[in-house]
Amino acid sequence: MNKEYLPYVSLGYRPSKSDLICKFYFEPAKDSSHTEAAGAIAAESSTGTWTELTTIKRETRVNLGAKVFEINNNTCKIAYPAELFEPGNMPQIFSSIAGNIFGMKEINNLRLLDIDFPKKIADSFKGPLYGIQGVRKLTGIKKRPLVGTIIKPKLGLNEKQHAKVAYEAWVGGLDAVKDDENLSSQPFNNFYKRVDETLKMKRKAEKETGEHKVYMCNVTAETKEMLKRAKYLKDSGNDYLMVDILTVGWAGLQTLRDEMDRLKLVMHGHRAMHAALTRNPKHGIAMDVIAKASRLVGLDQLHIGAGIGKMEGDVKEVQELVHVCEDKLYNVKPTFAVCSGGLYPGTIPALVKLYGKDIIIQAGGGVHGNPFGTRGGATAMRDAVDAAMSGKNIYDYAKNKKELKAALDKWGAAHV
Amino acid sequence: MNKEYLPYVSLGYRPSKSDLICKFYFEPAKDSSHTEAAGAIAAESSTGTWTELTTIKRETRVNLGAKVFEINNNTCKIAYPAELFEPGNMPQIFSSIAGNIFGMKEINNLRLLDIDFPKKIADSFKGPLYGIQGVRKLTGIKKRPLVGTIIKPKLGLNEKQHAKVAYEAWVGGLDAVKDDENLSSQPFNNFYKRVDETLKMKRKAEKETGEHKVYMCNVTAETKEMLKRAKYLKDSGNDYLMVDILTVGWAGLQTLRDEMDRLKLVMHGHRAMHAALTRNPKHGIAMDVIAKASRLVGLDQLHIGAGIGKMEGDVKEVQELVHVCEDKLYNVKPTFAVCSGGLYPGTIPALVKLYGKDIIIQAGGGVHGNPFGTRGGATAMRDAVDAAMSGKNIYDYAKNKKELKAALDKWGAAHV
Repeated sequence: MNKEYLPYVSLGYRPSKSDLICKFYFEPAKDSSHTEAAGAIAAESSTGTWTELTTIKRETRVNLGAKVFEINNNTCKIAYPAELFEPGNMPQIFSSIAGNIFGMKEINNLRLLDIDFPKKIADSFKGPLYGIQGVRKLTGIKKRPLVGTIIKPKLGLNEKQHAKVAYEAWVGGLDAVKDDENLSSQPFNNFYKRVDETLKMKRKAEKETGEHKVYMCNVTAETKEMLKRAKYLKDSGNDYLMVDILTVGWAGLQTLRDEMDRLKLVMHGHRAMHAALTRNPKHGIAMDVIAKASRLVGLDQLHIGAGIGKMEGDVKEVQELVHVCEDKLYNVKPTFAVCSGGLYPGTIPALVKLYGKDIIIQAGGGVHGNPFGTRGGATAMRDAVDAAMSGKNIYDYAKNKKELKAALDKWGAAHV
Repeated sequence: MNKEYLPYVSLGYRPSKSDLICKFYFEPAKDSSHTEAAGAIAAESSTGTWTELTTIKRETRVNLGAKVFEINNNTCKIAYPAELFEPGNMPQIFSSIAGNIFGMKEINNLRLLDIDFPKKIADSFKGPLYGIQGVRKLTGIKKRPLVGTIIKPKLGLNEKQHAKVAYEAWVGGLDAVKDDENLSSQPFNNFYKRVDETLKMKRKAEKETGEHKVYMCNVTAETKEMLKRAKYLKDSGNDYLMVDILTVGWAGLQTLRDEMDRLKLVMHGHRAMHAALTRNPKHGIAMDVIAKASRLVGLDQLHIGAGIGKMEGDVKEVQELVHVCEDKLYNVKPTFAVCSGGLYPGTIPALVKLYGKDIIIQAGGGVHGNPFGTRGGATAMRDAVDAAMSGKNIYDYAKNKKELKAALDKWGAAHV
């Protein structure tokens, strides 16, 4: 056993309130014990390295070294003194506790399962500007889930076609329209023109329906261009933006959130690329961690999957994510959880039953694939929300509603 | 089989020069064929979805749809029309070809192995400002590998202690000193004070040795703070910065590179967190992909591991990464490959033999763990570089060199 790692194991240590605590799943490599592997993780993610140093003092290890305080089969918990971290610097936090350690020889697999942030670090981030209550106040939707669509096809519509589909969705009954995660500003659909066209249609739809409509417009780009696009949205009268949180990265995301102090747009977060990190149950970073960090940084809305539908995921995981978004976390506002991915009207009662009413439900194909087209598909979705809120059986509820009935005929309903 | 995915499979299609081509490893889920799974990947990462849409036109699919043109056991190649991507927007490119697809039900495992960028997209990024030749010109080191250290302990030294260790390393013979990836600006070591103290020592070391010394100072933070720190480095007379590329993210990294048009600092990239994405051979994103994207964005130097030493990795992978950094890529300058992670003087001849002379070699513990301390450890490393360049056996070379001899006695030498 490498003796350099031993001082980082303090089983029975009781973490202080100011410690940051990480829970890891880990599998030691063939030649390592659980103690050595856990010690290696704590060392490399705080003050240690693989060999004895002439430059480290004992008090550095004692005062700043991370401590493995619990090993339970293949999970361990490590306490990190808050001084290791720069307040308000999410990239630095991830470089520490989710950095080099995934590549160490002493472990075969390593997964960061959860982080408990101490108050001091949580307070150093801005958190959501709106959160669930702020979004409800802005939209005037008091109790029911918000319901929306992603413009489809993902890519290929020009600005006017995009705006037209959005209009159909809004007047059909949906609250929200969202760009797809890979639509930013392409030759066939320019960001600025798209905003102009789509907001024109948004105002028209609002006038016709008397409802507040939402356009989650994707600003994903290099940081300065992203800020420019956000400002354009604000100047054009929009109150929302969307961003791909992981492909943009923590630095750009924090910058965007800072700018919201001035622009005051609701931030909707798409998690494209997350499954590259989150899907393997033995390695990588759990979505819980990404969701909690996103809430601290200040996402008002965040995709958490659906547990049912076309994408991978299970109900228990999604329920956990709803807790990460909503549970008390010092003074940080709750993030609105967004269920999305292969959904259709027949899934809505199940989603509400599983995750409650404080969710945003989005369907792409499940709207634009409706035999009555986008407008009919939107009506079917909105009716399905009303069905779920009424507590009635969705098939009974659909009897005189041709669009919802068509959706049920085409895709069925989910039962939980 | 879901018929929506079929139009995205065109085996035998010959990609055009303007296509972006991705190579994936994939394992279909139990109920999916290889064709269906590959088609699902191509659909979801371009214009398709899981159900038939009323809003998509045939020409959209034909003109913008990605095409699976080769399936070979568990690998497939997909061609993407360049129009799908926004020039100069790396987050958008990753949201497309490394986005939702990792979470699809049709696949159990998916790994993005490689990307071939067409010239038009490659040209839309800035690429390295310096590259290998620029760094050699700046430092005056014409042929041999550059050699440096990471200040250790990773965290815990105050600004003056940090600067003192850096000074010892420089006067001992090292070219470069690098902050650790999790050191940014903490209570015990403030960024701005650290820069002041360390650059004072750098000037002193340069005066005493007559050599150009390098300080790779970690600016990792929220984007605007990062730019502020980079400017402070420039104003203070430094010519280098370092950044944690993945925890910062593509948006912030591009912004930082843009700023280098003005500040003209060499950009050194640390890859903390990469192994969360890259380590599992069946899932995630290969380091080749991250390295190529980083080169396009414009990192002058990039960590690629060592294949030998404390971190996981194998020689073949690292050799491949050297190619990604150095091989002809339109007019994009080559990125200087950095070998780092558990290295010590006895590994240097092997590193040069494996990866050539156009590498930067870094050791942390292998310097500061030398029985003669940091200065002696630095001398041992530099002597080991000279030994490797001379072609002599390192043990013979060490006969009258007590620091190198001590390093060899402590850690041995690597043979390849």
